[in-house]
Amino acid sequence: MSTPTKIILGHTADYHVHLRQGGMMQAVTPAVRQGGVSIAYIMPNLVPPITTLDRVIDYKKQLQQLAPKTTFLMTFYLSKDLTPSLVEEAAKQGAIQGIKCYPAGVTTNSSAGVDPNDFSSFYPIFEVMQKHNLVLNLHGEKPSVAHSHSNETQSEEDEDDHDIHVMNAEPQFLPALFKLHSDFPHLKIVLEHCTTKAAIQAMDKINADLKPGETPTVVASITAHHLYLTIDDWAGNPINFCKPVAKLPSDRRALISAATSGKPYFIFGSDSAPHELHKKAVHVGVCAGVYTQPFAIPYLAEVFDKTGKLDKLKDFVSTFGNKFYGLDDAKKLVSSDVAVLVKKDNVVPEVVTANDLKVAPFKPGAKLQWSVEWQSSA
Amino acid sequence: MSTPTKIILGHTADYHVHLRQGGMMQAVTPAVRQGGVSIAYIMPNLVPPITTLDRVIDYKKQLQQLAPKTTFLMTFYLSKDLTPSLVEEAAKQGAIQGIKCYPAGVTTNSSAGVDPNDFSSFYPIFEVMQKHNLVLNLHGEKPSVAHSHSNETQSEEDEDDHDIHVMNAEPQFLPALFKLHSDFPHLKIVLEHCTTKAAIQAMDKINADLKPGETPTVVASITAHHLYLTIDDWAGNPINFCKPVAKLPSDRRALISAATSGKPYFIFGSDSAPHELHKKAVHVGVCAGVYTQPFAIPYLAEVFDKTGKLDKLKDFVSTFGNKFYGLDDAKKLVSSDVAVLVKKDNVVPEVVTANDLKVAPFKPGAKLQWSVEWQSSA
Repeated sequence: MSTPTKIILGHTADYHVHLRQGGMMQAVTPAVRQGGVSIAYIMPNLVPPITTLDRVIDYKKQLQQLAPKTTFLMTFYLSKDLTPSLVEEAAKQGAIQGIKCYPAGVTTNSSAGVDPNDFSSFYPIFEVMQKHNLVLNLHGEKPSVAHSHSNETQSEEDEDDHDIHVMNAEPQFLPALFKLHSDFPHLKIVLEHCTTKAAIQAMDKINADLKPGETPTVVASITAHHLYLTIDDWAGNPINFCKPVAKLPSDRRALISAATSGKPYFIFGSDSAPHELHKKAVHVGVCAGVYTQPFAIPYLAEVFDKTGKLDKLKDFVSTFGNKFYGLDDAKKLVSSDVAVLVKKDNVVPEVVTANDLKVAPFKPGAKLQWSVEWQSSA
Repeated sequence: MSTPTKIILGHTADYHVHLRQGGMMQAVTPAVRQGGVSIAYIMPNLVPPITTLDRVIDYKKQLQQLAPKTTFLMTFYLSKDLTPSLVEEAAKQGAIQGIKCYPAGVTTNSSAGVDPNDFSSFYPIFEVMQKHNLVLNLHGEKPSVAHSHSNETQSEEDEDDHDIHVMNAEPQFLPALFKLHSDFPHLKIVLEHCTTKAAIQAMDKINADLKPGETPTVVASITAHHLYLTIDDWAGNPINFCKPVAKLPSDRRALISAATSGKPYFIFGSDSAPHELHKKAVHVGVCAGVYTQPFAIPYLAEVFDKTGKLDKLKDFVSTFGNKFYGLDDAKKLVSSDVAVLVKKDNVVPEVVTANDLKVAPFKPGAKLQWSVEWQSSA
């Protein structure tokens, strides 16, 4: 079977986007469309986090001015600042599509986050979300804890079981996902940027009874960079350091299988997370995040092409996510243009400079084989 | 039991030291004694690697001039440039005490290394080493290999078993260690800078029949920084990135247990590896290595003290290593001064500047509780 040189991808969506604020926001917001994405689901981890109606409305307005053809979907940051009535009001106004939950301290600007060992104080909010069809976006990692060496009653093996570190933080979070789904069976939940074979298997388990054509209640998003990276790639290369960290080759293979599977509970969310170059090139305290926005769809196309699954790309970047989020009606979009994948070389620059800011994109200098063009759907 | 405030450590030895060449060599060679170490076993991974008699003699002379009271033990770099007759000649002259084996491509300046899947081409050299009581120092890691995703006959599970990555590179090397020991039962071997519980268990297994007071044939060296670090510490902190990488909390606990165990087959080798700060603070291609030399013994004392094992420190830093290497006779040393550990604050600077070079030491800014003073043994 020969590979097509042109594929209509439709209303492409990236369901996990960091556009920051200030100068960085101005620099990277236009990159959403450059990267082949029509619909962007925006993360709320600004400084301070977005927890009010005024701020989320104002933030969307700023983004819309910077990228008039991009459809922005907005979120609140789950914290004690939210109340059920505020969430209800935001849902009724259509100001937000979901709420992002960060375990405290696991990634950039997450210090206001929650304790994943006990979500119960947020249950009144989850009730409202379930009622209004809002999505709960989970950063699925437990914060790291290393148990100290003790000579006391606890054995070393017991201690090993209780350690949480960057390699098992996601698998250790999965029981909390199962419990949430069990307590709120109709609440739409996304396990964001999943990175492990264990998470993929958990999604298969949760969706085991899903009937053909049925829309899942619990899905997982997968980034572009986790389809490329393993631990060896970020060991010694801060440009590839992100949270959750890329794991083992076996995990990467499981992610590629999932993304290209045609299963409707795996959707695209880039977690594109720009940081200024001088915050990546440091010997202590590297900012976590990989910047994929300007080439989001081409990075994916490369992987789907290599595995002979280009025919599944539209499902992953348009169909499944849009259906889950209820964005399958083109009337809800600010532009009806459709993204078209074309076989055309696309070179990633070493550094992106915009608005006096320097950001190193993922795979600097790489020559990609696919580009995205926009076509009026009229 | 109250902690003593003064402990005589004797002729302290660091059996894994990188002193580099040129300006860096001038900057860091005096730091061996500052760090409380009398005997330094010097790695040969210069550019080009040390593989001739002239160069090893000349290198030792340069080091001795920079640090007249330090006893330097020298090594060759195992490569195709070595011949059995050259090794025999070097042994007879006492120019080298051992030969360092680097698997190709695993760490700084290791591109001239060997294929750990097949040591057999070096067996004639190992014969000579065994005969002349030279030590074989193994960097015990297999080079990383990720098996690609295939849709062919091999299953995903099979692929998983064959992956080599930074987390399992050492355990995957251990069968090669067992084979070498079995083929050369009298060859003195050091598994350098071991980092995993699996390696510790392998050493226990190899030495299971060791009688009290007997000197082992196969030992492992352990660094100071691996007693502190886990993967979470180098994720995002290039200053803590080294090869082998620090592993999981359970591995760190096993290393602390081993170092403080009083078992004669665990000896100190710092693998102190200075790199200029501008080579650590980069977004791609961070140099692997942690610089511990100027505070080598104080870093260790801190850990031994915290675990209530200060009484085992002398074994780890003097007795066991010196006995294994045949350095237990003070007449072989250029200085008979003994190191004395004293309870006295010792602050690690943010950056060490020497000879116009800047190097960030391990744990910059940390306040250590122990210092080393030198005392004439006369």
